[in-house]
Amino acid sequence: MEQIQVRTTQRIDLVDITGKVQAAVSKSKVTDGVCHIFCPHTTAGLTINENADPSVKVDISKTLSKLVPAGAGYAHAEGNADSHIKSSLFGPSLAVFVEHGELMLGTWQGIFLCESDGPRSREVWVKVV
Amino acid sequence: MEQIQVRTTQRIDLVDITGKVQAAVSKSKVTDGVCHIFCPHTTAGLTINENADPSVKVDISKTLSKLVPAGAGYAHAEGNADSHIKSSLFGPSLAVFVEHGELMLGTWQGIFLCESDGPRSREVWVKVV
Amino acid sequence: MEQIQVRTTQRIDLVDITGKVQAAVSKSKVTDGVCHIFCPHTTAGLTINENADPSVKVDISKTLSKLVPAGAGYAHAEGNADSHIKSSLFGPSLAVFVEHGELMLGTWQGIFLCESDGPRSREVWVKVV
Repeated sequence: MEQIQVRTTQRIDLVDITGKVQAAVSKSKVTDGVCHIFCPHTTAGLTINENADPSVKVDISKTLSKLVPAGAGYAHAEGNADSHIKSSLFGPSLAVFVEHGELMLGTWQGIFLCESDGPRSREVWVKVV
Repeated sequence: MEQIQVRTTQRIDLVDITGKVQAAVSKSKVTDGVCHIFCPHTTAGLTINENADPSVKVDISKTLSKLVPAGAGYAHAEGNADSHIKSSLFGPSLAVFVEHGELMLGTWQGIFLCESDGPRSREVWVKVV
Repeated sequence: MEQIQVRTTQRIDLVDITGKVQAAVSKSKVTDGVCHIFCPHTTAGLTINENADPSVKVDISKTLSKLVPAGAGYAHAEGNADSHIKSSLFGPSLAVFVEHGELMLGTWQGIFLCESDGPRSREVWVKVV
């Protein structure tokens, strides 16, 4: 299992980790298989979306925050109930195919850590089988 | 494949199944691999989130029900259209790493069955590879 | 890796691809394992939900479009920001168990491509391990 370190810089942000996941795949020496990606946090999640136009990740973050606003009378008293809810909407695990040692992503796809309670130091775990 | 039995007690609820999934992992005798978890229902899903403070799961359930209210003029005539929609937002499949025979979860993470049309007897399927 | 071709006919639609995924499983000759399904697009996703009553998929599509409406003042200038956001809510990857060469789905479950910016020709990638 490889551990990727990610430093997030805002409370809500999508951080492109495609390069770091590819580095973990290369290190695994697996040329043909499945790359499993797991987020061990409860106020951050994972998604795959467009990494060409940065406005896409802004739209995703803003829309999620509109649907699940901070401070909307939640029971959880730590001020980050919205962050927990968002992480369940994104989800904690992804699987991407590996061929010839490369992540098989669509033309416009990048892998993102969805930070919902930053800024923080985060980990993402990668296992290639 | 292991089958976990879960009895839910309310229409909408998140039920912590971490212990049952770990038992299935232990039974599989796999010490290093990936644990796949699958929900074979269309009105329940799976998520991973905080299992320390029970108010987190309440906030998740209530917010999902606010976003996708019951009885909001749906086409599906069985009175559980909201339950189907929520199950697609949570998703039906998760993958968690296994090392030394143990599920590798973050400090605050637990695995939950997201019941959206209970109370019912539910199954969760587990396969460790 | 098998590539499934899907022709979508509307801007927003859920297309049942269960038969095509089963065909890819059969072609793989794997009788016992895990079928990974991946959507290489950023304006479409994957879900598993009821395929008996077609009104369920209509309710899912309509509710997602209510939560994430088209043209709601997004930053992304291509007119499909809502499609990107929906694809992150559905998610890009699923895993379904295979036993005796058959996809192990619940009684009411089907696998759907969630088109959010059609009509288009789409691909879904399948790998059985």
